[in-house]
Amino acid sequence: MALFLGIDGGGTGCRAVLAGADGPVLGRGSGGPANINTDVEGAARNIMAATNEALRGRGATPQELIAVLGLAGGTMRAATARLTELLPFARIRIVNDGLTAARGALGAEDGILAAIGTGSVFAAQRLGAIRQVGGRGFLLGDEASGAVLGRTLLAEAMRAEDGFAPMTPLLRAVLDEHGGIEGIITFGNRAKPGDFGALAPRIVASDDPAAQRIFGAAVDQVRHNLTTLQDGDNLPVVFTGGLGPHYAARLADHWPQRPALGSSTDGALAMARELGVPA
Amino acid sequence: MALFLGIDGGGTGCRAVLAGADGPVLGRGSGGPANINTDVEGAARNIMAATNEALRGRGATPQELIAVLGLAGGTMRAATARLTELLPFARIRIVNDGLTAARGALGAEDGILAAIGTGSVFAAQRLGAIRQVGGRGFLLGDEASGAVLGRTLLAEAMRAEDGFAPMTPLLRAVLDEHGGIEGIITFGNRAKPGDFGALAPRIVASDDPAAQRIFGAAVDQVRHNLTTLQDGDNLPVVFTGGLGPHYAARLADHWPQRPALGSSTDGALAMARELGVPA
Repeated sequence: MALFLGIDGGGTGCRAVLAGADGPVLGRGSGGPANINTDVEGAARNIMAATNEALRGRGATPQELIAVLGLAGGTMRAATARLTELLPFARIRIVNDGLTAARGALGAEDGILAAIGTGSVFAAQRLGAIRQVGGRGFLLGDEASGAVLGRTLLAEAMRAEDGFAPMTPLLRAVLDEHGGIEGIITFGNRAKPGDFGALAPRIVASDDPAAQRIFGAAVDQVRHNLTTLQDGDNLPVVFTGGLGPHYAARLADHWPQRPALGSSTDGALAMARELGVPA
Repeated sequence: MALFLGIDGGGTGCRAVLAGADGPVLGRGSGGPANINTDVEGAARNIMAATNEALRGRGATPQELIAVLGLAGGTMRAATARLTELLPFARIRIVNDGLTAARGALGAEDGILAAIGTGSVFAAQRLGAIRQVGGRGFLLGDEASGAVLGRTLLAEAMRAEDGFAPMTPLLRAVLDEHGGIEGIITFGNRAKPGDFGALAPRIVASDDPAAQRIFGAAVDQVRHNLTTLQDGDNLPVVFTGGLGPHYAARLADHWPQRPALGSSTDGALAMARELGVPA
């Protein structure tokens, strides 16, 4: 019996799911980071650890598997070529995790995914073809993401302290908690996207004027991105990620919404099944 | 005769200037980086190298000097306390380099400094008191700086490629030169602020619609910051830094402008002379 493997991976970890051509999941596994931008060899090791865990007790080898990997940075050609060399699967396809997330969330139906957590990514699926946009990282993209919201809040707090923007209770609180401008700069020197993103819940659920201005601008960006992806259609939109429900609530009047059907790993498995068995 | 030392330092190097209570400069020196956020001991070594170079042939020791140091990160209390311990001067004052830059540019006159190069900082001097604002670094501040302009250009190029913003000749060129979105992400992973800033000359002197939109928004931010600092006055504004002339040209109708009287090192020396000799 042919065995299919779906992998989802990124900077914090990777997950594997194993199944036959149809029927239920036969095994699951997880492993460490699979960040192919920074450590292809480490990613390969962690992906194999997750794969072997999913295979446990099956009496099958990785060499038999038909695998689709949805990875952060999965569009980077040099890194994916190297990863392909390092992995033993019978058949392999590496794509950006935005594609597998969209396939998992939407199933085979036309629709749009807005995945907004620490980062952000958008994808539209039409007739089985997925177009991913955004998701370019904390520094140059990830608009409306938790990390960008948190960074904007800190920048706005410093601008308010400098007199360039109105001071509000939330900005005052953020300044005091960090030890003023000096403390915010120190925090910013060390913070990772997740550290900035930890501030986001205080922005999206606040009636503070600065929070509402920052979140309102982010909602406008998401509306713009989704309107562009709709391209005149009225496709259902799936909001996922930690901040997804907040954007969903603010954009409830615009398009039909539906819950996610499955995860990025589910999407990778579905795409592996579509790859089919080598001749 | 009392000897006064002015130091200007930051991430790329430091400069020293030595003089008596009045009269001409007696010595100059330069040294490696003085980034007290990342390496206080290294900063102290490089500051002493610049100081000893300035002292050469004077027959004086560092222990006699009355010194003012204008340093990037000079508001960070823990780092400046440690640096003070490491330096041998008879009298020492450490301030942010924005303050010494303002004192150098404006002399003793009331006025406003807008220093806009790879980073940005603003300062207003009134009756000898200097208030510095902005200059919070590439990630959380430095609005209108070359590094932020360059980062914005790259982000906009990716948004245009994704269909979220209009494509223009400059955005197309930037995408092609970097090897598309993948190449821009790779560049962004490694680029330092100066690398982003290297794109700025193509933005501030371009009639490309995207360049004009990006630069126009930055001009609006500078106008807002300067209007805030004017606080209803009509003080002369000094624009310095690599991008200073471009902002000066765009904001020529708003306030009187004048050229910088001197450098940040000159400002540090003037502030050292004001510190006076220990009793």
